[in-house]
Amino acid sequence: MDFNAIKMAAERIHKQVHLTPVLTSQLIDQALGCDCFFKCENLQKVGAFKARGACNAVSLLGENEAAHGVATHSSGNHGAALAYAAKLRGIPAYVVMPSNAPQVKKDAVAAYGATIIECQPNLPARERELARVVQSTGAHFVPPYDDERIIAGQGTAALEFMAQTADLDIVIVPVGGGGLLAGTALAAKGERANVLVYGAEPAAADDAARSFRSGQRVTEVEAKTMADGLRTTLGQANFVVIKSHVDDILTVSEASIVVAMKLLWTRLKIIVEPSSAVAVAAILEHKKIFFGKRVGIVISGGNVELSQLPF
Amino acid sequence: MDFNAIKMAAERIHKQVHLTPVLTSQLIDQALGCDCFFKCENLQKVGAFKARGACNAVSLLGENEAAHGVATHSSGNHGAALAYAAKLRGIPAYVVMPSNAPQVKKDAVAAYGATIIECQPNLPARERELARVVQSTGAHFVPPYDDERIIAGQGTAALEFMAQTADLDIVIVPVGGGGLLAGTALAAKGERANVLVYGAEPAAADDAARSFRSGQRVTEVEAKTMADGLRTTLGQANFVVIKSHVDDILTVSEASIVVAMKLLWTRLKIIVEPSSAVAVAAILEHKKIFFGKRVGIVISGGNVELSQLPF
Repeated sequence: MDFNAIKMAAERIHKQVHLTPVLTSQLIDQALGCDCFFKCENLQKVGAFKARGACNAVSLLGENEAAHGVATHSSGNHGAALAYAAKLRGIPAYVVMPSNAPQVKKDAVAAYGATIIECQPNLPARERELARVVQSTGAHFVPPYDDERIIAGQGTAALEFMAQTADLDIVIVPVGGGGLLAGTALAAKGERANVLVYGAEPAAADDAARSFRSGQRVTEVEAKTMADGLRTTLGQANFVVIKSHVDDILTVSEASIVVAMKLLWTRLKIIVEPSSAVAVAAILEHKKIFFGKRVGIVISGGNVELSQLPF
Repeated sequence: MDFNAIKMAAERIHKQVHLTPVLTSQLIDQALGCDCFFKCENLQKVGAFKARGACNAVSLLGENEAAHGVATHSSGNHGAALAYAAKLRGIPAYVVMPSNAPQVKKDAVAAYGATIIECQPNLPARERELARVVQSTGAHFVPPYDDERIIAGQGTAALEFMAQTADLDIVIVPVGGGGLLAGTALAAKGERANVLVYGAEPAAADDAARSFRSGQRVTEVEAKTMADGLRTTLGQANFVVIKSHVDDILTVSEASIVVAMKLLWTRLKIIVEPSSAVAVAAILEHKKIFFGKRVGIVISGGNVELSQLPF
């Protein structure tokens, strides 16, 4: 897949998603030692960039494929995104969610009219339950990240970002399954060949960093991070793109994630989930790389349980 | 003062303030029964629309007036705004703050390099301390709201808003001292003569509503509201404009403020202070007025102590 896939996705979904704003803050620039531009995908439909990939994937379905709706398993934003995209198309959505998924994320999926199927909180149970749902409903499975339609959709955020913000030296985004990072790398380098693209990952879930360094995709990780959106391992299609288009993956401590999250809340006045703060934490921990540069950060989402803040 | 004062202020300050985004949410529209457009002044410099008025007032000072800096008393956003405006001009700022002002607001004033002078938390003490500061430093006093330069500056938010959002039927903003409401009424009706302009006020600090109904400015109020930005009474210059340009002032309960605040946090993913939620609370409590209309709401600020949320 290539830059063109992103441009076509952008044409396809532009009426279904928000053109999200880019925010700046002098006080954050002072704290981080570089000029920061924040692409606010927390202000996107369903509160996360995931709306882009889901809309692209659902738009691409033929009539027959879409006839019985769509299904996925998700502990978070992808479930709400698919529910939103399905609602726009007027087809049913089935979302398998672990029983311990945050209430705020269950509420979001339900608000868009999807059917929630609860399962035990582990990957085999999720896959088993999803297979059963697909079997019994005939719904089309839309994976959360390991899918070229999803990668292309997620890349549209960076495409907009490059048009909104001139002369970025670096773009940095969080990496979990790798949909956002792969799409961002294709889009940013397609628009501006010499921009550097970094992934940011919790050290406590560093499968992407280890995969990137070794060239072999790590498929198991303990993932004891507060950044719940980044606990998954890198997808296969995602790793192919990331290996060839990303410059490096930086890891961060849990403590830095909390500092970064608080900085964003207090200075940008926006609600970001821990996963979104990981990219800012990477700047905090690796200041030399970013010093004096024009840095674009994609704020990935804002779905957080307000009663359980880490500060 | 008139519409022209707002347009001139906008030209004067446009490089000093952010052009803030307008956000929308289908789920909020469903909850409120109207099409809502949110002008996000919580994403403004210093986290509040107050940056506009302060920049306008400071820009208008002659060399002699500005020579010894500026001073004000403020428990909140105006202090930070004046500090910011003074810093841009390269002059000192002195801010008299009550000793019990929220730490987040003291931090903001300090971050912009102003000198903070603490005083007892009551109006006579504030005015006494301010007089002493002005006397000893020669600084120019810039009032928080009862001032035409301030009103004109605050009105620039609505001027932008009308240009960003077509065909608004109603604009509603919170009212405390009345700088935002007076400026908004001049700007919105200047751009679109038949738009309705409402003020929203906590019932627990309803001096503006009572002033508006009686035609006589009420200058005392107990103000037991959580909306700390709206505890002041209406200014004189503000009341003159409000009497002739505002359509009504709606009051709301404290309970509605909490509901509205939570709705904004969870659905718009932005941090709003209780004062900002008051306009949305007014829609919740007076749904008939707004039903089916295109309603513009100015989100006034986002400076809130994160450790003391009301939910």
